Amino acid sequence: MMIKYSNGKEYKPTIEKKKTMKIKSRSSANRGMNLEDDINKSNKYYLEKNICLIYKRPTPINIVKVDYSRGSKITDAYFEKQSTTDYNGVYKGRYIDFEAKNTKNNSSFPLHNIYKHQIEHLRNVILHQGIAFFIIEFELKDEVYLLDAKFIIDFIEKNERKSIPYSEIKENGILIERGYNPRLDYISAIDKFYFNC
Amino acid sequence: MMIKYSNGKEYKPTIEKKKTMKIKSRSSANRGMNLEDDINKSNKYYLEKNICLIYKRPTPINIVKVDYSRGSKITDAYFEKQSTTDYNGVYKGRYIDFEAKNTKNNSSFPLHNIYKHQIEHLRNVILHQGIAFFIIEFELKDEVYLLDAKFIIDFIEKNERKSIPYSEIKENGILIERGYNPRLDYISAIDKFYFNC
Repeated sequence: MMIKYSNGKEYKPTIEKKKTMKIKSRSSANRGMNLEDDINKSNKYYLEKNICLIYKRPTPINIVKVDYSRGSKITDAYFEKQSTTDYNGVYKGRYIDFEAKNTKNNSSFPLHNIYKHQIEHLRNVILHQGIAFFIIEFELKDEVYLLDAKFIIDFIEKNERKSIPYSEIKENGILIERGYNPRLDYISAIDKFYFNC
Repeated sequence: MMIKYSNGKEYKPTIEKKKTMKIKSRSSANRGMNLEDDINKSNKYYLEKNICLIYKRPTPINIVKVDYSRGSKITDAYFEKQSTTDYNGVYKGRYIDFEAKNTKNNSSFPLHNIYKHQIEHLRNVILHQGIAFFIIEFELKDEVYLLDAKFIIDFIEKNERKSIPYSEIKENGILIERGYNPRLDYISAIDKFYFNC
């Protein structure tokens, strides 16, 4: 249900909208959010099953103004770009750090939405012997890969290309299995790639 | 300089206040903030010297309202209690997770400002073989200790006491050396306690 007013603005009833979002949850429009949601739900499952402890880092917020007279209410603040990555935690004593990205592109993964700070951060994670990777979703193929961060860093250093071909990701990454619970079994992919099991 | 008006309110000129804060930076009033500052500066040093990669987690913020018409300006939000700990990161491949606390108490460390969620979180870190500890500052003694999280968890489980005696912390913790750079060499304390070196 959508009503267009003469001022051009759309009226979307809240309840209707929520319903629509639920039904449309696997549509391509929402897949970017679904990737995050799938990872968060997988993390919850992993935590409950004592498999690992992985958290989403909160989006950093630049706080401009706080009203202390109203119970420390923040009245002026802005979202900042993540200078590290989306997720980190611990699995079998090892430090885990990764970024999740999705693309609507079918033939390659564009590198423009990986920030320099994130590459620098992942370089440091590798230096300190942490496990660093990307989770990359090809939305239209409905395929999700774990790709070692070193592969991406090397690719950026050695290539002029602004994107990594799908074929290279398929060859060098680990396909992450989808399921009911966990939604995205990326720990099995970690086992395969980093623990050889 | 401080002027008292007839309404009882104090007038503190901003510049004067800043100066005072700088001069008073080691006073007991500011030591809680100094502990955080010392750890953050030590982390910066460790990062630059390629020793380890430890970050302060941002304080979680509950966002109530965002004004998208003004460049995603957050207009209503509140600080939330940290459900995990203040710091995490990686050292020699191992996952590191800790909470920093200071006390003005001279004879014991009060447990009331450690939240249940944090204990639960640290329990999970230990379960997954991460390195979990507290950095505890006795302000009046000007002593800072690294204390294994398991010691605190066991203490809470086995005791009715609401505080850990100073003597037990001195006996079971590792005294962290203060210096110019790093300000608080807690990595050396980790080496002693967890890596036996």
